[in-house]
Amino acid sequence: MNEFYQKDIISIKDFDKEKLEKIFASTDKIMQLNSVERREICKGNTLAYLFYEPSTRTRLSFDSAMASIGGNSLGISDITSSSAQKGESLADTVRIMSIYSDVLVLRHTLDGSSRFAAEISDKPVINAGSGTEEHPTQAIQDLFTIKKEKKKIDGLKIGIIGDLKYGRTVYSLLYGLGNYDVDVRLISPESLRVRSDSVYEIKKRLSYTESTDIEENIDELDVLYVTRIQKERFPDEEEYLKVKGSYVVGLDLLKKMKDDSIILHPLPRMNEISTDIDNTKNAKYFEQAEYGKHIRAALLGLILNKNGF
Amino acid sequence: MNEFYQKDIISIKDFDKEKLEKIFASTDKIMQLNSVERREICKGNTLAYLFYEPSTRTRLSFDSAMASIGGNSLGISDITSSSAQKGESLADTVRIMSIYSDVLVLRHTLDGSSRFAAEISDKPVINAGSGTEEHPTQAIQDLFTIKKEKKKIDGLKIGIIGDLKYGRTVYSLLYGLGNYDVDVRLISPESLRVRSDSVYEIKKRLSYTESTDIEENIDELDVLYVTRIQKERFPDEEEYLKVKGSYVVGLDLLKKMKDDSIILHPLPRMNEISTDIDNTKNAKYFEQAEYGKHIRAALLGLILNKNGF
Amino acid sequence: MNEFYQKDIISIKDFDKEKLEKIFASTDKIMQLNSVERREICKGNTLAYLFYEPSTRTRLSFDSAMASIGGNSLGISDITSSSAQKGESLADTVRIMSIYSDVLVLRHTLDGSSRFAAEISDKPVINAGSGTEEHPTQAIQDLFTIKKEKKKIDGLKIGIIGDLKYGRTVYSLLYGLGNYDVDVRLISPESLRVRSDSVYEIKKRLSYTESTDIEENIDELDVLYVTRIQKERFPDEEEYLKVKGSYVVGLDLLKKMKDDSIILHPLPRMNEISTDIDNTKNAKYFEQAEYGKHIRAALLGLILNKNGF
Repeated sequence: MNEFYQKDIISIKDFDKEKLEKIFASTDKIMQLNSVERREICKGNTLAYLFYEPSTRTRLSFDSAMASIGGNSLGISDITSSSAQKGESLADTVRIMSIYSDVLVLRHTLDGSSRFAAEISDKPVINAGSGTEEHPTQAIQDLFTIKKEKKKIDGLKIGIIGDLKYGRTVYSLLYGLGNYDVDVRLISPESLRVRSDSVYEIKKRLSYTESTDIEENIDELDVLYVTRIQKERFPDEEEYLKVKGSYVVGLDLLKKMKDDSIILHPLPRMNEISTDIDNTKNAKYFEQAEYGKHIRAALLGLILNKNGF
Repeated sequence: MNEFYQKDIISIKDFDKEKLEKIFASTDKIMQLNSVERREICKGNTLAYLFYEPSTRTRLSFDSAMASIGGNSLGISDITSSSAQKGESLADTVRIMSIYSDVLVLRHTLDGSSRFAAEISDKPVINAGSGTEEHPTQAIQDLFTIKKEKKKIDGLKIGIIGDLKYGRTVYSLLYGLGNYDVDVRLISPESLRVRSDSVYEIKKRLSYTESTDIEENIDELDVLYVTRIQKERFPDEEEYLKVKGSYVVGLDLLKKMKDDSIILHPLPRMNEISTDIDNTKNAKYFEQAEYGKHIRAALLGLILNKNGF
Repeated sequence: MNEFYQKDIISIKDFDKEKLEKIFASTDKIMQLNSVERREICKGNTLAYLFYEPSTRTRLSFDSAMASIGGNSLGISDITSSSAQKGESLADTVRIMSIYSDVLVLRHTLDGSSRFAAEISDKPVINAGSGTEEHPTQAIQDLFTIKKEKKKIDGLKIGIIGDLKYGRTVYSLLYGLGNYDVDVRLISPESLRVRSDSVYEIKKRLSYTESTDIEENIDELDVLYVTRIQKERFPDEEEYLKVKGSYVVGLDLLKKMKDDSIILHPLPRMNEISTDIDNTKNAKYFEQAEYGKHIRAALLGLILNKNGF
C-alpha cells in the first residue's frame, strides 16, 4: 500500500524529505504517461472543492489535474453564494461534501480549518490554502519546480522577495525548504517582514538572512521567488508607491543575476515581474504553474489508489 | 420498458405506494453496485440544471448522483447571473437547456413551473423544488430514509417539527406519507402551522394532530423530522427568540424519546438540532443526505434507461 | 492532416466558402453518429472557457458540445469573480488557462482580444464573441442553419432586422454571407443602422439594401434573421417604445411572407418574435440553437483530431 493512500494533506510541516521525494517521483512518472494511461488513474472518482475564500487559480489547477487523470470535480467555488449563507457550520458542510465525493479540497480563511475538516470527513481532505501559513500543495509545487529546473534543491541560494508578512505561500515554502540544505535570503520592505511569531518555527528548520534591498548579493542567488505586494497591506499609499517601484524584477536586475538563475512566482502576478522577463530562459513561473497541475494529479492519484499508479 | 423511462418527476402526488416501492428497490440495487458498474448506468448522459432559486445542496446532490452513474452535469446554478437577466422567458430557457442535455433539473420559485417546463421540454424534467409545496425528490429521499432506518413506514408515529408554514419539504413529505398508514404529529409555533389552504389536501391523504409543545407525547414518536425555523418568518424578533429556544432538539429531549427513534433533517441545519446529537445512534440526517444521492442516481438511471438498470 | 487541426478560430473573415463547406460536412457527419461514437471524438480532452463578458448561452453551447463528444469543460464563466480581479493581465490568464486545457474558448469585450490570446496560447483559441464585430461560431451556426433549412445559401433573399449597430452577431453573419451570392436587406430604426465605419468592409463582400420598414418587400424574403433591440441603446424611452412595437415579428407579418420562408434568431429573445410564431413551420430558431451545439462539436473535433473524425 502506498503511504499516501486515503491520507489527508493538511500541512507542509507533515512532509519530510523522503515523503517529498516520493511525491516528486510520482509526479515525474505521471508526466511521462500518455493521456490515455493518465486517465485510468482516477477514472470515475469525484473531487469536491469547498472554497471559503475564492481562488480561481487553485481551484482550476485541481480541477484540471483531476480531469487529466480521468476524474471529475464538483463543489462550491465561493461559499458566499451557497447554503452556508443560511448559516450552516463548516462541520456540516464538510460532512455533506464528503458524501458527494471521494476527496475533499478545502480552502478556508482560518488556521486549523483543514485539520478540523479532516477529523470530520470520511474522505481524505487536501488543504488548498488556509489561514496565514498553510498552502501545502503550492509548496510542493514550488519545491518540485526548483528540483526540476535546477536538478537539485540542496546547496542552492534562494531569495524570496515581496510581501513576506501576509503571503501564506511564503510560509509554506519556507517550511518545505526546511527539509533541504539551502541558503535563504528574505527580501521585503521593513513593514512586510516575516511575522515575528513565526520566526521561531522557521528558524527551527532553516537559517536565513533578511534584507530590504533587492540588489544586495543578487548575483549569488540560484532562485528568486517573487510574490505580490498588495497595496492594501500598507498603512499609507505613499509608502506603497515607494516600495512598489523598487521591488519590480526587470531585465536590469536579471542582468546582475547568475546566468542560470531562475525566477519563480506563485501567480497571479501584478507588475512585480516585468513582462520582458517572460521570454528569457530564466523565467520559470509558467512552468511552475504547469508543474502544479502535475503535482496535484500525482497527489490525487496517490491518495485515491491503494497501490499508487 | 420500465415505467419511469423518459417520464417527468413533477409532484410527489404523482407517486403511489407501488411506484415509491419500485424506486426504493432500484435505489437498493444501485447501492449494491460497485463504482465501475454504477458508472455504466448513465455513461455519456448529460444532466442540465436550471435553478431560479439557488440551492447548492440540492444541485450538488444531483451533480454527484449523476457523476456516480457515469454522467455529467452542466447548467445554470443561479439564473440571476445568466441570460435570463436579459429577459428570456422560462419557456425559451427550458427549450434551450433541453437541447443541451438528456434530462432537465429545475428549481423555481413558482408553483406549477415544473409542470409547465415539462410540457415544453423534449427531455424529461425533474422538479428540484418549486413553489410552496413541491420537492418530490426530497420527499422520496425522506421516505426511503425512514424505510431503511426503521425497516418499514406503515405503523410508525412520525413527528414533524419547525416551520410547517413555509417549508416546501414538509408539504411534500406529508403528501408522500399519505401513501402509508402513519400517525403524524405536527409541532410548530402557532404562527408557523401548516397553511390553512393546504389542510384539505393533506387531510384527504392522512390524519394528523397538531401541537405547539415539542415535549407532548414525545416518548411515542418513532421518527422526529426537524426543519429550520427562519428568523425572517416572524413579524417581530421577540417572538422568534421565544420560539427559537424551545424548538431545539438536544440530548435532554432525546432522553425522553424511544431508544430506537430516529432524528431526521433535510439540512442545512442552523441550531435546531444540537451538535451533541450528531454522534448518537438516533441521528440519521447525514445518512439521509447520503440516501438522497442514491435516490437521485436511481431516478436518473430509471428515467434515462429504457429497461432500467 | 485536416486543415483545422490545432488551428485557432478568430474571425469569420478567415473562413472562405470552401472552409465553411468542410465544416458543414463535418457537422453533418457528427449529427449522424450515435452517442457512443460521438464520445470517442474528444475523449479525455479538456476545454477551458474564459469569459470576460458573461454569456450563459454561448458557454453552455460549448460545454454541451464538448460533453457530447466525450470531453469535459472547466474555466471562468465570469472573470469579475476571479483572480483577474487581482489585476492579472489577459496574457497571463490565457497562458495559465492553456496549461489547464487542450483548447481555449474566449469571450472578451475588446476587438482583437482573441487574436492576441492566440499568439500567446500554446493551445488553439476559439473566439466566442469579441468586441463589436466578431462571433465566428455563431455566424457558422447561422449559415449552417440556413443551408440545412433552405438546402442552399446562394440565391437567397435574406432580411436582417433589429439592432444592426451594436449586435456583433449581425456583423459576423454579414461577413459570413459575403462568401455566398445572396441578396441582403437590412431593416432597422434609423439610429440602429449598421455602423458607418463597417460599411466599407461589408460592401467589399456583399451588396445590401437598407430600410426602416419591416413590411417593405417582406414577401420576397427567404430568411428573416431577427435580433434583439435593447432599450438601453436608445437616447430616450419614447423613441424606443415607438420602435419596439413596430419591429415585432408576429403572425400578421408571417402571413405576408413566403410560405417556405424561415425565421431565425440568435437568442435569447425578448419579444421581438411573438411566441405564437414558435409552433409554425417557419420558426427555426430552436433548430438554430441545436445546430449551434453540433457545429461547435464539429469544430472542436476538427481542432483536436489530427485526421478529423
